[in-house]
Amino acid sequence: MFSHLKSFQALKNLSSHPIDLSSEGVFNKKRVKEMALSEAGFDFLYAAERVTPEVIEALYALALETKTQEKMVAMQAGEVINEIEGIESEKRSVLHTAMRDQFDHPQESQASSKAARMARTELDKLEAFMNEIEDKFTDLIQIGIGGSDLGPRALYLAAKAFELPQRRVHFISNVDPDDANHVLNQVNLEKTLVVVVSKSGTTLETLTNEEFVRARMAKVGLNPKHHFIAVTGEKSPMDDPSRYLASFYMWDFVGGRYSVTSMVGGVCLSFALGFRGFKELLKGAHAMDRHVLSADLRSNLPLLSALLGVWNRNFLHIPTVAVIPYSQALSRFTAHLQQLDMESNGKRIDKMGSFVDFSTGPVVWGEPGTNGQHSFFQLIHQGTDPISIEFIGFRKSQYVIDLEVEHTTCQEKLLSNLFAQSIALATGKKSDNPNRFFPGNRPNQILLADRLDLKTLGSLLSFYEHKVVYQGFIWNINSFDQEGVQLGKVLASQLLSLFRAKREKKNPPSYDLGEAYLDFL
Amino acid sequence: MFSHLKSFQALKNLSSHPIDLSSEGVFNKKRVKEMALSEAGFDFLYAAERVTPEVIEALYALALETKTQEKMVAMQAGEVINEIEGIESEKRSVLHTAMRDQFDHPQESQASSKAARMARTELDKLEAFMNEIEDKFTDLIQIGIGGSDLGPRALYLAAKAFELPQRRVHFISNVDPDDANHVLNQVNLEKTLVVVVSKSGTTLETLTNEEFVRARMAKVGLNPKHHFIAVTGEKSPMDDPSRYLASFYMWDFVGGRYSVTSMVGGVCLSFALGFRGFKELLKGAHAMDRHVLSADLRSNLPLLSALLGVWNRNFLHIPTVAVIPYSQALSRFTAHLQQLDMESNGKRIDKMGSFVDFSTGPVVWGEPGTNGQHSFFQLIHQGTDPISIEFIGFRKSQYVIDLEVEHTTCQEKLLSNLFAQSIALATGKKSDNPNRFFPGNRPNQILLADRLDLKTLGSLLSFYEHKVVYQGFIWNINSFDQEGVQLGKVLASQLLSLFRAKREKKNPPSYDLGEAYLDFL
Repeated sequence: MFSHLKSFQALKNLSSHPIDLSSEGVFNKKRVKEMALSEAGFDFLYAAERVTPEVIEALYALALETKTQEKMVAMQAGEVINEIEGIESEKRSVLHTAMRDQFDHPQESQASSKAARMARTELDKLEAFMNEIEDKFTDLIQIGIGGSDLGPRALYLAAKAFELPQRRVHFISNVDPDDANHVLNQVNLEKTLVVVVSKSGTTLETLTNEEFVRARMAKVGLNPKHHFIAVTGEKSPMDDPSRYLASFYMWDFVGGRYSVTSMVGGVCLSFALGFRGFKELLKGAHAMDRHVLSADLRSNLPLLSALLGVWNRNFLHIPTVAVIPYSQALSRFTAHLQQLDMESNGKRIDKMGSFVDFSTGPVVWGEPGTNGQHSFFQLIHQGTDPISIEFIGFRKSQYVIDLEVEHTTCQEKLLSNLFAQSIALATGKKSDNPNRFFPGNRPNQILLADRLDLKTLGSLLSFYEHKVVYQGFIWNINSFDQEGVQLGKVLASQLLSLFRAKREKKNPPSYDLGEAYLDFL
Repeated sequence: MFSHLKSFQALKNLSSHPIDLSSEGVFNKKRVKEMALSEAGFDFLYAAERVTPEVIEALYALALETKTQEKMVAMQAGEVINEIEGIESEKRSVLHTAMRDQFDHPQESQASSKAARMARTELDKLEAFMNEIEDKFTDLIQIGIGGSDLGPRALYLAAKAFELPQRRVHFISNVDPDDANHVLNQVNLEKTLVVVVSKSGTTLETLTNEEFVRARMAKVGLNPKHHFIAVTGEKSPMDDPSRYLASFYMWDFVGGRYSVTSMVGGVCLSFALGFRGFKELLKGAHAMDRHVLSADLRSNLPLLSALLGVWNRNFLHIPTVAVIPYSQALSRFTAHLQQLDMESNGKRIDKMGSFVDFSTGPVVWGEPGTNGQHSFFQLIHQGTDPISIEFIGFRKSQYVIDLEVEHTTCQEKLLSNLFAQSIALATGKKSDNPNRFFPGNRPNQILLADRLDLKTLGSLLSFYEHKVVYQGFIWNINSFDQEGVQLGKVLASQLLSLFRAKREKKNPPSYDLGEAYLDFL
């Protein structure tokens, strides 16, 4: 178990006296220059993490002891890693990387080259479909929830600067009827394509919203068959040419939260950005997939970020991570990461089936800067609990248009704030007035790229996928299942029977707790 | 100090063996019925909190010992409560409640009735202005950041079902130039009203974005003077009739994060909902302001929620609170609460100027349900750290349109999921498969109302304002200042000088740390 490793003990010893970044002179120019990596189109600056060269050495020893690199190679080669020994579990490969393994240096194993070919078939179908529809549709509604919603939505918003003219994408996810009504008020259904995304073809929210939109279409005299597309598993109940214009396939070796680069994100992103735009994004993701395979231990960006996260979580005992992109385009990117990280690593058993005795995935949250500075940064600077921060920034803006006000551009103001926060959080500030005292010593890291274009966006997505996966490898937990969502589903279905009985004035099935809550309706 | 109170010690003793909700039979029908309050248009269900009647008694003793009710009366009467003894501090009244004290039972103190009259003058100006503009404008852009953005935006989105036809509101907050460019691409400036919101008239982001939009207007041959409105302090640099069509005033006795019901939210919400719609919202907020004053100790909803939060934070040591509205309309409400709570109570000194030895405000985060269930709920159910949850739900949807699929409506599916999650988190589930074991005992509460109409939305806003304020009263901290945002501002301005020098090819002012970071650009 993680907590019994030799490197765990070494790190634990080092954490008894972690470096204090607020001490005079500790956080200096030399440190900033030395604690930086430049790889795969990104600079990674970690001088403001509470680490010393000894801690970094011990973290790399941890990576070696937990065989992170062997595991990454195995994952991308398609070995069965979604499993837990000795108990019933999914026993699947994890091949989201195959979705974009369409460029240089393809994987050679049978499993992953087969998956890449299957992805290629869907990509070819998608390209043909996009050519076929020409400009018949102006709007696309994606109906999906969880991984079929958060990732595609985050990336669509992030890429809106590159959207084709006369194209708009909307999302319906929540079973709340107000969600569907709100979106339906905004589109002309005649010119709207509807993409329904569910691997099993049985997701309650998604099927309900599909019926909702179909009913509205029928009401205005349109034939849903000419508007609806399915993204689903082959032969699922949704794979039905009599009801859909087209079906695109997804497979159980691509988990929902890792599925943005499959057809789950592919259809809506190609519609918005053009098929070529989507391919740019895949190219960027692939470049990061290649980076984590080919980089040596000390040049691997997602691995280093993962190791620093483990240091903060298990040795400095910081319970939450705020991800703060200094980019309005990434306004929903943190919501995607929240699922990616918390659903992957919010686990309490390891891959041997034993309950863990250490902390796994943290709470991940955040909002873009500079907005956050005018909101929750008060607590980050002066609250009683330390919070670790991951900043994301870009040298240039997406739109080229900028304006000089008082001798600096908006982009310069944005970046000066990003760097200022990193420094302020690390160094703090002494003051005789206790209300103006800043303890500092708040660990943070900066991921910096040139410009949030489509390729960089793909790399950023893949960076975080690999970071999360590496943390799972280090903790030796299964980052690819989600048993924790089942109990709620079972109980919700029991409660629905109560609602139904009430509506039909039948005797309700006995369910005391449900009835007790329903009495308040 | 809070930690030295008699009731603190009593609670600490009680917390050594807190009730285990996952024990057979503990979370039962009787408990659900008994642990419920019905007041001010809301049901508050707290059976799934880890409390016993003894804990509730001890919490009410804490309320009495910390004089929460006297402090609430003093606040609403306009006494100077934004201050810290013995050190330089703001020394102000806190009168956001006066903004809506325009209905029954007005406050009688001089300070608060004066503030209510000032608010009334602005409301009258606003009503006249809204009549005047008739249908000259279809779009409104609000430029503001922090409290001038999050609250108005959250409420606008929450109220979109009640928006007037042909009216749309947009927000520009971030100094990221992509934010302004993105919004400007969506509007016809000829028919656009721009509201610039800054109390001091000097907020960097806001003034920069104002110049950005003014430049764009000038470029297309429009006169900004006929489009721009100021919401600012009287006599601030922005209170200038030569540059603005109108000025609406705000005052230093209404803090940014408490300012939604002032002109900060008033102008954009009246534009979207009609002046009458905005008044409905004020009426709802006022009803909750009256409730906290007139309710007896045991009927006071925000107080009980605050006390339970203190129990979870200081005695069960839970570091974060997830606010999960089962309502898509409240998709940004949690972002507003995040500021409201974390900026108010993310403090480390008490009102006597002493450093605290206990935990103050938690990290507040969340996304709407059912969406969250398909994302981070995995960690909430099976992660290693307990998280406390505040659910918000409504019996009816905003739009009346709903659809029966498989014998139940969407709204019924939504509510069945809300109740199912509350039960699942409390009771957990035993299993021989460790991956299907749910520890349960995750504390949560439910706030339930009939329908998210404008009045209920106003009450909900005020509920949370008072909850946050009560926690500040209990901890005896100042929930109304924000010194923790200053250091970042100072450093950002030093970094900006470096950018400027670089641009003008002058010798940069010496600032080692800033230079070290800038070297990566």
